[in-house]
Amino acid sequence: MRWSGYPYTQAPPRDFLSVCTVRCQKFLISRVGEDWIFLILLGLLMALVSWVVDFAIAICLQAQKWMYGGLESNVFLQYLAWVTYPVVLITFSAGFTQILAPQAVGSGIPEMKTILRGVVLKEYLTFKTFVAKVIGLTCALGSGMPLGKEGPFVHIASLCAALLSKFMSLFGGIYENESRNIEMLAAACAVGVGCCFAAPIGGVLFSIEVTSTFFAVRNYWRGFFAATFSAFIFRVLAVWNRDEETITALFKTSFRLDFPFDLQELPAFAVIGIASGFGGALFVYLNRLIVQFIRKQKTINKFLMKKRLLYPALVTLLVSTLTFPPGFGQFMAGKLTQKESLVTLLDNRTWAKQGIAEGFDYIGNSQAWNHPQVNVFVTLVLFIVMKFWMSALATTIPVPCGAFMPVFVIGAAFGRLVGESMAAWFPDGIHSDGTIYPIVPGGYAVVGAAALSGAVTHTVSTAVIVFELTGQISHILPVMIAVILANAVAQSLQPSLYDSIIRIKKLPYLPELGWGHHEKYNIRVEDIMIRDVTYITLNCCYRDLHDVLLAGHLKTLALLESSESMILLGSIERAQLQALLSLQLGRPRRLEYLRDRATAEKKRLSMVSHPGSEDGSQRVNQEVRFQISTEESSFSPTPTPSMKPLKPALKRPSVLDRPTEIPIPTSPQDHSGSSLKNLFCVNPETEDLEDDFDVDDDMTIREIAEWEENQLDEHVNFDNCKIDPAPFQLVERTSLHKTHTIFSLLGLDHAYVTSIGRLIGVVSLKELRKAIEGSVAVKGVKVRPPLSSFRDSGTSGTSSSNSENEATELHKLWDRHKSMSLPREHLASDSDEKSQ
Amino acid sequence: MRWSGYPYTQAPPRDFLSVCTVRCQKFLISRVGEDWIFLILLGLLMALVSWVVDFAIAICLQAQKWMYGGLESNVFLQYLAWVTYPVVLITFSAGFTQILAPQAVGSGIPEMKTILRGVVLKEYLTFKTFVAKVIGLTCALGSGMPLGKEGPFVHIASLCAALLSKFMSLFGGIYENESRNIEMLAAACAVGVGCCFAAPIGGVLFSIEVTSTFFAVRNYWRGFFAATFSAFIFRVLAVWNRDEETITALFKTSFRLDFPFDLQELPAFAVIGIASGFGGALFVYLNRLIVQFIRKQKTINKFLMKKRLLYPALVTLLVSTLTFPPGFGQFMAGKLTQKESLVTLLDNRTWAKQGIAEGFDYIGNSQAWNHPQVNVFVTLVLFIVMKFWMSALATTIPVPCGAFMPVFVIGAAFGRLVGESMAAWFPDGIHSDGTIYPIVPGGYAVVGAAALSGAVTHTVSTAVIVFELTGQISHILPVMIAVILANAVAQSLQPSLYDSIIRIKKLPYLPELGWGHHEKYNIRVEDIMIRDVTYITLNCCYRDLHDVLLAGHLKTLALLESSESMILLGSIERAQLQALLSLQLGRPRRLEYLRDRATAEKKRLSMVSHPGSEDGSQRVNQEVRFQISTEESSFSPTPTPSMKPLKPALKRPSVLDRPTEIPIPTSPQDHSGSSLKNLFCVNPETEDLEDDFDVDDDMTIREIAEWEENQLDEHVNFDNCKIDPAPFQLVERTSLHKTHTIFSLLGLDHAYVTSIGRLIGVVSLKELRKAIEGSVAVKGVKVRPPLSSFRDSGTSGTSSSNSENEATELHKLWDRHKSMSLPREHLASDSDEKSQ
Repeated sequence: MRWSGYPYTQAPPRDFLSVCTVRCQKFLISRVGEDWIFLILLGLLMALVSWVVDFAIAICLQAQKWMYGGLESNVFLQYLAWVTYPVVLITFSAGFTQILAPQAVGSGIPEMKTILRGVVLKEYLTFKTFVAKVIGLTCALGSGMPLGKEGPFVHIASLCAALLSKFMSLFGGIYENESRNIEMLAAACAVGVGCCFAAPIGGVLFSIEVTSTFFAVRNYWRGFFAATFSAFIFRVLAVWNRDEETITALFKTSFRLDFPFDLQELPAFAVIGIASGFGGALFVYLNRLIVQFIRKQKTINKFLMKKRLLYPALVTLLVSTLTFPPGFGQFMAGKLTQKESLVTLLDNRTWAKQGIAEGFDYIGNSQAWNHPQVNVFVTLVLFIVMKFWMSALATTIPVPCGAFMPVFVIGAAFGRLVGESMAAWFPDGIHSDGTIYPIVPGGYAVVGAAALSGAVTHTVSTAVIVFELTGQISHILPVMIAVILANAVAQSLQPSLYDSIIRIKKLPYLPELGWGHHEKYNIRVEDIMIRDVTYITLNCCYRDLHDVLLAGHLKTLALLESSESMILLGSIERAQLQALLSLQLGRPRRLEYLRDRATAEKKRLSMVSHPGSEDGSQRVNQEVRFQISTEESSFSPTPTPSMKPLKPALKRPSVLDRPTEIPIPTSPQDHSGSSLKNLFCVNPETEDLEDDFDVDDDMTIREIAEWEENQLDEHVNFDNCKIDPAPFQLVERTSLHKTHTIFSLLGLDHAYVTSIGRLIGVVSLKELRKAIEGSVAVKGVKVRPPLSSFRDSGTSGTSSSNSENEATELHKLWDRHKSMSLPREHLASDSDEKSQ
Repeated sequence: MRWSGYPYTQAPPRDFLSVCTVRCQKFLISRVGEDWIFLILLGLLMALVSWVVDFAIAICLQAQKWMYGGLESNVFLQYLAWVTYPVVLITFSAGFTQILAPQAVGSGIPEMKTILRGVVLKEYLTFKTFVAKVIGLTCALGSGMPLGKEGPFVHIASLCAALLSKFMSLFGGIYENESRNIEMLAAACAVGVGCCFAAPIGGVLFSIEVTSTFFAVRNYWRGFFAATFSAFIFRVLAVWNRDEETITALFKTSFRLDFPFDLQELPAFAVIGIASGFGGALFVYLNRLIVQFIRKQKTINKFLMKKRLLYPALVTLLVSTLTFPPGFGQFMAGKLTQKESLVTLLDNRTWAKQGIAEGFDYIGNSQAWNHPQVNVFVTLVLFIVMKFWMSALATTIPVPCGAFMPVFVIGAAFGRLVGESMAAWFPDGIHSDGTIYPIVPGGYAVVGAAALSGAVTHTVSTAVIVFELTGQISHILPVMIAVILANAVAQSLQPSLYDSIIRIKKLPYLPELGWGHHEKYNIRVEDIMIRDVTYITLNCCYRDLHDVLLAGHLKTLALLESSESMILLGSIERAQLQALLSLQLGRPRRLEYLRDRATAEKKRLSMVSHPGSEDGSQRVNQEVRFQISTEESSFSPTPTPSMKPLKPALKRPSVLDRPTEIPIPTSPQDHSGSSLKNLFCVNPETEDLEDDFDVDDDMTIREIAEWEENQLDEHVNFDNCKIDPAPFQLVERTSLHKTHTIFSLLGLDHAYVTSIGRLIGVVSLKELRKAIEGSVAVKGVKVRPPLSSFRDSGTSGTSSSNSENEATELHKLWDRHKSMSLPREHLASDSDEKSQ
């Protein structure tokens, strides 16, 4: 008895509230699905992580300095403190990473490149890896070794994005979309670089260059948005922490604006670029050499493998001994941390003694470069040489670390060296008429830093990164020229550092086509494809399946209509086929066979007069086939419509109509033993232990073999098999260039080569890689692909002969088709054909 | 009698020389093929073009100023000079472009976007267009109208690249490669922007954002290389011309470096960004409105169309009247050219009267902003409002012109306005503790310029362009924030200016997927595909072909094995099929038929006793079919192997074996009349005039119709037909998102939807466009696609039912195949099936 006059008196307020809550929730959830929310969260998170890591590193480094400073009375104790501290930190970092997540080791950019290429490396994007990477990185960089945080930050940002995605997917389904996740990972890479250097634009560009082959411009804003937000928060944190007065660049320079450089200085910048190109290639080579050396030396390796932490400790010991300030370190500004070195190198004053700034006053950190006995040039050269091999060595330590920053500092030092030389050579500047504009060695340092890091990573966007790092863009043309020259030299000598690591780690990645090599335009798919494709046909037997699986190692197999028509219908994964085969030959099937045989035996005993004993095996055969269908349908997730696949079996002449009802376990009281077993068999986990000796015993190995032979002769039933109904197809005349494009665009693993529906070959990543490495200079070897020379004279001939072939083949197909389909048709012209 | 002892005495030196020459030539040619040579040439050429155009524009503008200044005594004469000059220039530009190459009209970026998408717009890349664009652009900009050179320069650079490619292809074959040309065009777009603004990085990024959907990172260096070189040469020319002391930015600013802006100023920057977003959308809308208005007004249109030059002249008259300095122009700095306005707007001093710079000294061009009676704020507001609609109007004039620069200037003015307001509001700056940092309105102008131009073009890279244009990067964060906000607002309201033009011009381009809309992840190909595909089968008749061609308007048609199997073999272009059909029904064929009938008639007369008169028509039919084959083989480019296609015709019962020799014109003396005609018929150009009344007369229309009916009943012979043997295939479950990606990646026009080889649908650009425009907000309307809601609950259900369908269909295929192929096979299990 409810009075409907006041509908909003008692219950409704609560209803209203709950409706509101639900609506708000729905709204929030729908908002949470928006990309920009995700990107803001990602940016915020990464800015915090970056700031915290920086803060922790600064504290670590300060602690080392404090220890070192406090022990000034005793050099030995000082040395012990100077050396032990980094050794402990690095060893801890290596051990921690090793135990928690070995995937966190190294830069992470090669892995991200591979993941963005479409390869799934799942263990690289877990929470464990995140923790290991962040803590490992902090300790590694806190040790003061020449390591960078940029590469690992790309990885950390991607980890963040992946974890955030997982977390957000609790709210909405959109986060489960794979292509969206890839897009978000690409944005995350930009965030990683952006919040590491507070360089949003350079971050986006660097991450694109380093991780992508093809970039969707539609993703562009994502990267920019997230990286800008992240860089902003990162710098705002510094302002809030009273480190800075306002938002500025990380390594702010203050070169003069009115006359940044003279036109005549450009050759010097070009020299820096070319030298950096060689230097970058050398660095990559050296790095790879060290890794390979460590791997090859089996005795060392064994020793190091046993004590996994020994190698990091030894390397750290060596490096920190050499940089010990009272020791050799005094000749290479060993006292300075990486950041301090960079700041001093980008200083806009000139160090070398010259006309105007005769006695340069080394104040603050710049003192480290000034040695009473030794010229500043010697210090710089020593710094460059020592840091060069130290960085190459240090980046091979199994801790989370990058090589960008060390290389950047070395490049800056090299640029400074050239700049100081120029300043010493032209004390009054080069400019001939009017005002005196002295040379700014700091500008050279900027150019050198961009050029060397660009050469090592094979990127142009380091130019943008230096502008954002220094807050000045006045040297844009020298930087661009040097970076491009450095890239040109380095790319023709060595792969990039990341590609080198990809090769060392043997990650599944497709190499790039090199700088404008002609040959790639002449190679066609038909030159590189494998013509002898292993395939299965619709009407094949299990035996064919078995043979095919034994023969090849391809992940996917082509499914053809028949071996005569060769028409490609789709592709099936190897695992699917193996499942099919094991289902056909597995124990459950055999046990059923035994059960059926037993029933048949019983029946035969009951009606001995039955004459058809010689086709007993056939009968059993068919019976079994029938079983397959029923059993498979009971395995399939949707039982009702799967009755259709039964048709072909039901169509058979059915003397055996009755046994249909026997194996169906709806009547368990009838023949308890076998039906119970049947129940167990459906549940494959339990059958292994319980049925082992009950039915199997009465089948000898010979019998089993015979039974298997019979099973293998049956036609394959593809009903419950996942078929890719539209695998990627190429034409034989597709150029290598285009093939490479398509493979990298779509992240393909293999593609079938077809001609008017017929399968004529297959190209996989392997063939493509071979073809590219044959045509593109790798390690200085350039091989012309063997078949391309045939086509040099002109393409018209080949294509015409090809179209002929096609026409002929088409004709065959037509003939075949006619011979099959004409009987069904009743055209006027057919009558005389039949009369023939 | 030649003595072979001294082989190198007489002739050899010449040989040696020629060998050397040939080798040198070969070397040069091989070098010429290198990409970098091409890029350097392109950069050099474009830098020269840019510099010459700038120089000519400067002279034009100077001439106007000189004329205006010389007539200061008489205001009316001054007005006449001020107005006539631009009207004449614009009219000339419009007329010249109209006559020489109408394709040169407008910005050119939309067309380049379409061309890079893979669509061939050949007339846009001719020498004529180049000449028209360069001269038209110079005149248009020389008039002082608010037009830009950036868009046209993208087009000019592409023209340069295309022409250079053509020229270089004289040396080597590499330049004929299509994919390479596309790569070079992409680089050329970067060069265009780069040499226009001396902004290599911004140029590359802007061109990527504006023209590409997917960018190959492998092309990145090309753009950078060429754009850097071009920008370098462009600026070096300025140095050589003594315009500059050294290489600097085009619009160099000199804001303070130590404290560029306060954190608390950021909201103001954000406001600029958001307002610019609305402004940008309004600009695009206004521009489109004007174009549509002009088009719709039929009376105006008729009038304007008659005198094509009237519209430009009228618009110019209006704009220049309003900017006349002694008139209304005094309130909106009408005296200044675009460049001068920009330079004054980016000035680092504050205009508004305030504490420190109480009486700001307006010197040089800045004077124009200072009006004795009117506040500088009013001047700025008037400038913004007037220039806004003027620019929107001016860019609709049919001359080569862009809208980037005018919008950039308006944005700078808007930024300046906000900056001056802030400076007036906080005379001592916002910074609370310590030093006084006054607000820099010039920084606001930079932010505004980047934001508004970013909003209009939907690009983020305008941020980079302003850094390169001003030579300062200190405002990076405000600029990035404003640009991103402006983009967010503008992109949600309107398409970009270039996309808007693409729509107005109805260029074949695929719209982008919007900013993170969920719906696109839910739509599948099966929702949007056309299921009722028009196809042809291998064994179809010409009648089917005829019907199919009449029914649909698709450019390509699917070729299936048969209508039962629906197996997709390839696709054939419509034109090919039309050619086939017209060959079958054309006059030559009919004339041959008549000739054959005549011969048959003759033969019948010679042997009257022949009984088979009732199957005469059939005989003729077959005879004709035989003729077809021979004739086609004589038409085909490769006559020898095409004898194979004759087989099906030869297989027919051949009572008519003898006539084979009759129509072959090797024995002309036998029956001169018809064989001569035969000779003519083979040459289709001549037959129209000469044979019109000779043979055709004796065939009535009914007879022709009957003959055509007979012809249509024949099977199609696809032998000489070009078949695309591997058209692109999708699966029904492919998401809209992925489909869009693939379409834009590969530049597809349509894709077939197949399932295990069977054709089940087709998706073309049209469907895709519809689907996207249904799901993505365009003009504020958001429509949920009708079918996607079914799948919201989860994807597992659909996919499983799908796989079932597949299984069923596969089964059918298997059955069909078995029923056809089993008779050939002799397996053990087949025996009982046959006994059935």
